[in-house]
Amino acid sequence: MPLKGRNFLSTQDFTRKEIEQILATAAKQKKSGWKPLKSKPKLALLFFNPSLRTRSSFELAAWQLGGHAVTLQPGKDAWAMEWREGIPMDGEAEEHVKDAARVLGRFFDAVCVRCFPKFQDWTVDKQDSMLRAIERYAGVPVINMETIVHPCQELALALTMKEKLKKTDGKKFLLTWTFHPKGLNTAVANSAALISTKMGMNLTVLRPPGYDLDPMFMDQARENAKAQGGSVTVTDDIDAAYKGADFVYCKSWGNLNYFGRWEEEKKVREPYRHFIVDAPKMAKTNDAYVSHCLPMRRNVKMTDEVADSPRSCLIDEAGNRIHGQRAMLTEILG
Amino acid sequence: MPLKGRNFLSTQDFTRKEIEQILATAAKQKKSGWKPLKSKPKLALLFFNPSLRTRSSFELAAWQLGGHAVTLQPGKDAWAMEWREGIPMDGEAEEHVKDAARVLGRFFDAVCVRCFPKFQDWTVDKQDSMLRAIERYAGVPVINMETIVHPCQELALALTMKEKLKKTDGKKFLLTWTFHPKGLNTAVANSAALISTKMGMNLTVLRPPGYDLDPMFMDQARENAKAQGGSVTVTDDIDAAYKGADFVYCKSWGNLNYFGRWEEEKKVREPYRHFIVDAPKMAKTNDAYVSHCLPMRRNVKMTDEVADSPRSCLIDEAGNRIHGQRAMLTEILG
Amino acid sequence: MPLKGRNFLSTQDFTRKEIEQILATAAKQKKSGWKPLKSKPKLALLFFNPSLRTRSSFELAAWQLGGHAVTLQPGKDAWAMEWREGIPMDGEAEEHVKDAARVLGRFFDAVCVRCFPKFQDWTVDKQDSMLRAIERYAGVPVINMETIVHPCQELALALTMKEKLKKTDGKKFLLTWTFHPKGLNTAVANSAALISTKMGMNLTVLRPPGYDLDPMFMDQARENAKAQGGSVTVTDDIDAAYKGADFVYCKSWGNLNYFGRWEEEKKVREPYRHFIVDAPKMAKTNDAYVSHCLPMRRNVKMTDEVADSPRSCLIDEAGNRIHGQRAMLTEILG
Repeated sequence: MPLKGRNFLSTQDFTRKEIEQILATAAKQKKSGWKPLKSKPKLALLFFNPSLRTRSSFELAAWQLGGHAVTLQPGKDAWAMEWREGIPMDGEAEEHVKDAARVLGRFFDAVCVRCFPKFQDWTVDKQDSMLRAIERYAGVPVINMETIVHPCQELALALTMKEKLKKTDGKKFLLTWTFHPKGLNTAVANSAALISTKMGMNLTVLRPPGYDLDPMFMDQARENAKAQGGSVTVTDDIDAAYKGADFVYCKSWGNLNYFGRWEEEKKVREPYRHFIVDAPKMAKTNDAYVSHCLPMRRNVKMTDEVADSPRSCLIDEAGNRIHGQRAMLTEILG
Repeated sequence: MPLKGRNFLSTQDFTRKEIEQILATAAKQKKSGWKPLKSKPKLALLFFNPSLRTRSSFELAAWQLGGHAVTLQPGKDAWAMEWREGIPMDGEAEEHVKDAARVLGRFFDAVCVRCFPKFQDWTVDKQDSMLRAIERYAGVPVINMETIVHPCQELALALTMKEKLKKTDGKKFLLTWTFHPKGLNTAVANSAALISTKMGMNLTVLRPPGYDLDPMFMDQARENAKAQGGSVTVTDDIDAAYKGADFVYCKSWGNLNYFGRWEEEKKVREPYRHFIVDAPKMAKTNDAYVSHCLPMRRNVKMTDEVADSPRSCLIDEAGNRIHGQRAMLTEILG
Repeated sequence: MPLKGRNFLSTQDFTRKEIEQILATAAKQKKSGWKPLKSKPKLALLFFNPSLRTRSSFELAAWQLGGHAVTLQPGKDAWAMEWREGIPMDGEAEEHVKDAARVLGRFFDAVCVRCFPKFQDWTVDKQDSMLRAIERYAGVPVINMETIVHPCQELALALTMKEKLKKTDGKKFLLTWTFHPKGLNTAVANSAALISTKMGMNLTVLRPPGYDLDPMFMDQARENAKAQGGSVTVTDDIDAAYKGADFVYCKSWGNLNYFGRWEEEKKVREPYRHFIVDAPKMAKTNDAYVSHCLPMRRNVKMTDEVADSPRSCLIDEAGNRIHGQRAMLTEILG
């Protein structure tokens, strides 16, 4: 299936070959530059949550491709939005997303959306309703800038792994939970499980008891592993998990059993501060590269020693955001 | 009078011929495209209130014309502003609009302003002081992005009516008040009265007792009607109002007798929820088109059934915002 | 030393000759226009505090030079940032500036920073830690958009003084403290002391007892004066200070002895409302020009009569912001 005109909501909607095509374009543009698109793509960037890297890289990528991005923050500088169908809108939201999406689809060539979970009810949040509503009504490609997955981060991570590891197939990818003093979106953890298996790696998820990722994403990871010849392991054995790892990716995420009850989870989480990525743990690996999506709380999730070590890919991965996204925009809007 | 260099504060400052000239340019650009302006227009967009469509369409229009827009939100990312003359500025405002406007006039080719009423005292708000102060001092064209009228919305509405009705003269334009759970700016209602009569239509204003528009605007509408051969009717008879209508435009607005006393008005307003635009009412019309300026509270102001019907112009009108404004900028700054 | 690739953190890092080179480029571009830079400079504008002129002029200057600026507001639309080294980040800040700065250095050709003091402890604030941390890690030129000095404002002021006074050497520059109802950043006062002496002027600082500028800046001003053949005088004698002045620059600033204790300083400050710049004081000068960096509280810091007089440079100075900054960007990134 050609990539032109497609949505970019999850890497799961794309074959490995399609993802590799985007990554190849990214590597080529990074090395040899890019051409403006004839379509001069106009992007709406809808941010329901803060951003530094995502906004910078999308605004610059649009401009580099000869287009223009407009950043809107519904509920702040733009109107708050309703996404449920058919209800009388007599609450806070002034605008229904079905109208906003259709209007944005008239003005723009793509609508890009960041909308984190509301952290009250996971059965609701996992439906990704705002993104799905925008997809349904925009009439132009919709791009996920992080909701319950973060596919643009996946492009940057995959591009970085290809640069560092050369071949990803058969390599051991460790996704490790780390402590964090606040409840946090699980999107990047879900995404790391998806992209590592999509790239043919053997995924180990290291997490304390109770901190499993949603089965929906684990099932997708297992399907990927099966298709690409990799494997999926879940463990709470720190030593075993780090042993032989080729790439360590850390992220904090919430305990789904306590979703929306942060005060309770806080106590459950407290004993697991030792999951921090540190030098002794890294010493057990196969001289692994290590990364995180940023922003990252230093010395809580990863020690300075590791973060500033030669194997750290923090800045390379973040820097690759613009190359991954420019390539994806080139393929989808070119 | 040539349009170049003019302010765009209210359509009342323009003859019908001049408005038609802007609309003709809009229709032409919409059909056949546009050329960047040699002047590469630099626009300051001053938003004292939120926006989605207006900001998107102005930012894109500036860029499409080869220029650049900078969005400023005084009191948020820019300094709060004083507009009264001669007073010692020892309150919250750090900056006088006379200085800000003159500085913006040095940097930009036009200053565009959204500044809603403060909803405390209509005799104050109706003076439109912030807009008038900026007009006085900017030294470059000033464009109203909604204060107590919304002339850019009028361009989009007029363009949409010309597309749908072909000829507007002699057609029945129904402006109907609808319920809304909050106090709301009356600008678009005022504007609908102005532009419909300017376009030679017979205006019927349907509103509950006490919800009259300010006489200042009704007088302007009557002047327009007189000049263009139309008429102006005000009624609270729902059946009579809808009967034979060619275009239904709905909007909520506040009761001027209770201006700034929202808690009191709430009770006065409550019995009028049935003014909602619904299918039975629409059935009484001359197969009318129906629209609203957006954002719109669905199933409070208009039912989903009507909003999503083939006669609904919600998205067409919003989509025409960029064509109306690009044309206006072309005429004024070209 | 060539200017290309340099940081622009303080005018003290530049010789008078280098500053004059930037000013000459500014005057030339203002008169005859400019060319886009081949480098198409991409600027990150990091605003930890509000802005009108600085943001407008940087966004427009980047665009005029063929580049693009992205405005980020950490703690609002971007993540809050930590700048201290080595600490466990378990507080509010989600991101360490060392990571953010390095990432921005990957995306952008320069990182521009506005970060006011926190007004709690001057010994901390005077270290300018956020700016210094960004400088240390960005790997690209860093530009000060106002921290504890405001060198971009200095360029605009110097350009304006050259336009008005022709020759600045030997002229009397009066920097006068004025009352202000709130605590305020001292950056522009520090900067006025630096640039006036850098330009060979005789600096008089007029301030109430206790309102001395930090010795760090006064020492730099005295060094400048020594090098350029000027002088530095500090006084609380209003008549003597205004007498013979060629350029009057007013600014409010805080009492360093009460730094961070605003409720106490308020009482100390109250008796000095008469430091306001007014016509009787201006009458004592050598027909001086008068200015302020804006935003300015009229009739508190300067009377309308003076602000709107023919000798007022308020708007000329603000208008010169874009010329000074475009020239500086041309020299540093061209």
